[in-house]
Amino acid sequence: MFELPNLISIHDLSRQDIEVILDTSAKMELVAVERSKELSGKIMATLFFEPSTRTRLSFESAMLRLGGSVLGFADIGVTSAGGKGETLADTIRTVERYADVIVMRHPLDGSARVAAEFSKIPVINAGSGAEEHPTQALLDLYSIRKMMRRIDGLTISLCGDLKYGRTVHSLGMALSKYDVKIKLAAPEALRMKPAIIDEMKKSGLDVVEVDTIEEAVRDVDVVYMTRIQKERFPDIREYDAVKGEFRITLHEVGMMRNDAIILHPLPRVDEIDAEVDATPQARYFDQVYNGVVTRMAILSLIFS
Amino acid sequence: MFELPNLISIHDLSRQDIEVILDTSAKMELVAVERSKELSGKIMATLFFEPSTRTRLSFESAMLRLGGSVLGFADIGVTSAGGKGETLADTIRTVERYADVIVMRHPLDGSARVAAEFSKIPVINAGSGAEEHPTQALLDLYSIRKMMRRIDGLTISLCGDLKYGRTVHSLGMALSKYDVKIKLAAPEALRMKPAIIDEMKKSGLDVVEVDTIEEAVRDVDVVYMTRIQKERFPDIREYDAVKGEFRITLHEVGMMRNDAIILHPLPRVDEIDAEVDATPQARYFDQVYNGVVTRMAILSLIFS
Amino acid sequence: MFELPNLISIHDLSRQDIEVILDTSAKMELVAVERSKELSGKIMATLFFEPSTRTRLSFESAMLRLGGSVLGFADIGVTSAGGKGETLADTIRTVERYADVIVMRHPLDGSARVAAEFSKIPVINAGSGAEEHPTQALLDLYSIRKMMRRIDGLTISLCGDLKYGRTVHSLGMALSKYDVKIKLAAPEALRMKPAIIDEMKKSGLDVVEVDTIEEAVRDVDVVYMTRIQKERFPDIREYDAVKGEFRITLHEVGMMRNDAIILHPLPRVDEIDAEVDATPQARYFDQVYNGVVTRMAILSLIFS
Repeated sequence: MFELPNLISIHDLSRQDIEVILDTSAKMELVAVERSKELSGKIMATLFFEPSTRTRLSFESAMLRLGGSVLGFADIGVTSAGGKGETLADTIRTVERYADVIVMRHPLDGSARVAAEFSKIPVINAGSGAEEHPTQALLDLYSIRKMMRRIDGLTISLCGDLKYGRTVHSLGMALSKYDVKIKLAAPEALRMKPAIIDEMKKSGLDVVEVDTIEEAVRDVDVVYMTRIQKERFPDIREYDAVKGEFRITLHEVGMMRNDAIILHPLPRVDEIDAEVDATPQARYFDQVYNGVVTRMAILSLIFS
Repeated sequence: MFELPNLISIHDLSRQDIEVILDTSAKMELVAVERSKELSGKIMATLFFEPSTRTRLSFESAMLRLGGSVLGFADIGVTSAGGKGETLADTIRTVERYADVIVMRHPLDGSARVAAEFSKIPVINAGSGAEEHPTQALLDLYSIRKMMRRIDGLTISLCGDLKYGRTVHSLGMALSKYDVKIKLAAPEALRMKPAIIDEMKKSGLDVVEVDTIEEAVRDVDVVYMTRIQKERFPDIREYDAVKGEFRITLHEVGMMRNDAIILHPLPRVDEIDAEVDATPQARYFDQVYNGVVTRMAILSLIFS
Repeated sequence: MFELPNLISIHDLSRQDIEVILDTSAKMELVAVERSKELSGKIMATLFFEPSTRTRLSFESAMLRLGGSVLGFADIGVTSAGGKGETLADTIRTVERYADVIVMRHPLDGSARVAAEFSKIPVINAGSGAEEHPTQALLDLYSIRKMMRRIDGLTISLCGDLKYGRTVHSLGMALSKYDVKIKLAAPEALRMKPAIIDEMKKSGLDVVEVDTIEEAVRDVDVVYMTRIQKERFPDIREYDAVKGEFRITLHEVGMMRNDAIILHPLPRVDEIDAEVDATPQARYFDQVYNGVVTRMAILSLIFS
């Protein structure tokens, strides 16, 4: 019997666990459309210590489609927390009296695990610090499996900001449980840290680093693009140069296989040209919807 | 069969369309009290890129009375939108995966139409830029019809800030589909733009401009008062002078017909004296409630 | 038949009224777990003119457990209120059209009573100014009665900031309807105002002031600790001295009776050492949950 008392890190899940979540997500496709009363009476608390409209609304949509209710806050500074310098532990021990499950976004690494330690109700990590965003990794996996009908055997490019993006870290860790080939394509300044590459290799992944976006999109099944943030660059000219190089336009799509797909955790700024949106490879908005069904699955498994 | 795929501008509606909405609003009076499950399982997203507590809560009350659920944001800067420089098109293509209908307030003219173009789910304009606020115009019409038992044949004064107020623009356009006489009464600096007056006249409205609040309230059926905003005046002394002149007090109410009514989109500051609230002419708080039933009608028609 | 049209001040409630609320709270214990549809279709408006995540979420949890819905705002400046300089009276006369009950937190003394005067729907005071927080006092009484199985005959210490804390003022007034002994323990600068002490004595309470936290915790049944706020002290050194003196650590718990309890309205900063949390005397997190059931009782009584 699968147990999902909390969902803190992709590291806590075996491949078997992940498969249960993906299978449950597939079952949720119909429920997402028809809606259900499965979690009627249940209350989800959304504690967003930093704003993330997208992730918050995705979880809320999932909870509402299952018939549950939502309370919480959308953007509270860490310092004012439950107010006035309260510790995270105290905030959690308070909110656990108000709700049946906590969905938390927090700017500090390790915060979700601390929350889970103190909480008597399940905690779902909706992004903690720069390292973990497990539900994003799960919805990415689900998108890949749904769109490509398998994960094993695929070649997947991770592109853009591989140094700071928590999304690619969690996804890389999740993919290491599968038999896939990984291409890493990032500007010099935003390359994935060697320690993480080593960890991926040790877990059996075939990882290569490439230098250009052209190499990243050729001969792969999935291009996973991420946003390159201006504020990562001390020199704005360096950013402008990189921005121009690491973009997907119709030119790059033309180099892709016909059945390959482009994913992106969104929000997208310039790194995928708007013209690309109309191509069959562009699947990042469908990916958004997959986030709702994956989170429905996670909520359903937590309460089952 | 009446179709309401979106509600972007009062210009998109024929008189026939408007009548269907007003008739449906009348039917919603009972539902508003008894509540229903008509939209059970449906999700409304409220995207408020500028704050408007009144309009947002009115829509939420309407959705909840119909048994639906709500998610969204109450006050997000345009620049941070779905976060970090995302375009409105991308925000819409994301949120349409979370909800069944979008209610949007946005500071830019034309934003609601852009949203509707990109959205696969219906979009309701809850105020865009300085021009459009169609649901306010509809609730105003509904208030007039409910309180005066007709619209054709009435004489209606539009007073206050006729230059910047999007409410009077939308209402003026809506009234041009009826056989009414319009008086316009505004301080010199806040007169309605000639282009809009011309448009109203061309559509067959009998429009006269008057100079004083006394002329505005005499021999009319409806006085539609709006707020005069201090920040519109470069010179504070000019504002103070105008503020004193364009006010409704018991003195002006005394000049009104006994069965005439005063409406106001609210919030009201000084332009209607608090003593007026107790007179039978003062109907602006009843107008608030009419906003709930009108929005229930709009939501019901969109999903029917 | 008990009527609860509004809940503005603990002064408005007789001991008999309070007992009805506490008895109803006890009945809500089971409903809080099983959830109900008692208030299905009903809408609660939460108007928080100053933020209070804890109180707001507690009320929302109570309403959701009873099957009702929630709309409102979590943190709106008083000046922008319903927007743009609107009076509280106008905001209330607007919101009463959107909801069935108003829960209001406001920074000004007397604001809740003003709101109730203008409102046609019930108003619950969720904290007004520095004086009143009646639902906190009721949940405190309920916690004491539930944990100690009585209130009459107990000795209760009120500790910490007795000058500015609205919680201790409301609780003191509530306790004056019972036959209890009160110890007051506060730093010199934060002593309870003589007028309030006089009022408590006149109503028959046995009140003594003590100087140290040791005296406060000895030979009492309940220690009610409150937060000492740095910003109350003109000189930071004075604050640091006081902070060190008025703390509950394992040392102080060792002086307490075995069956005595420590309560705290939370948030807690330094005034109760984290080590104390694991002792059987520490009951402040259970107190949080009692807030949910007490507010369920209040909502249920208002609608019954």
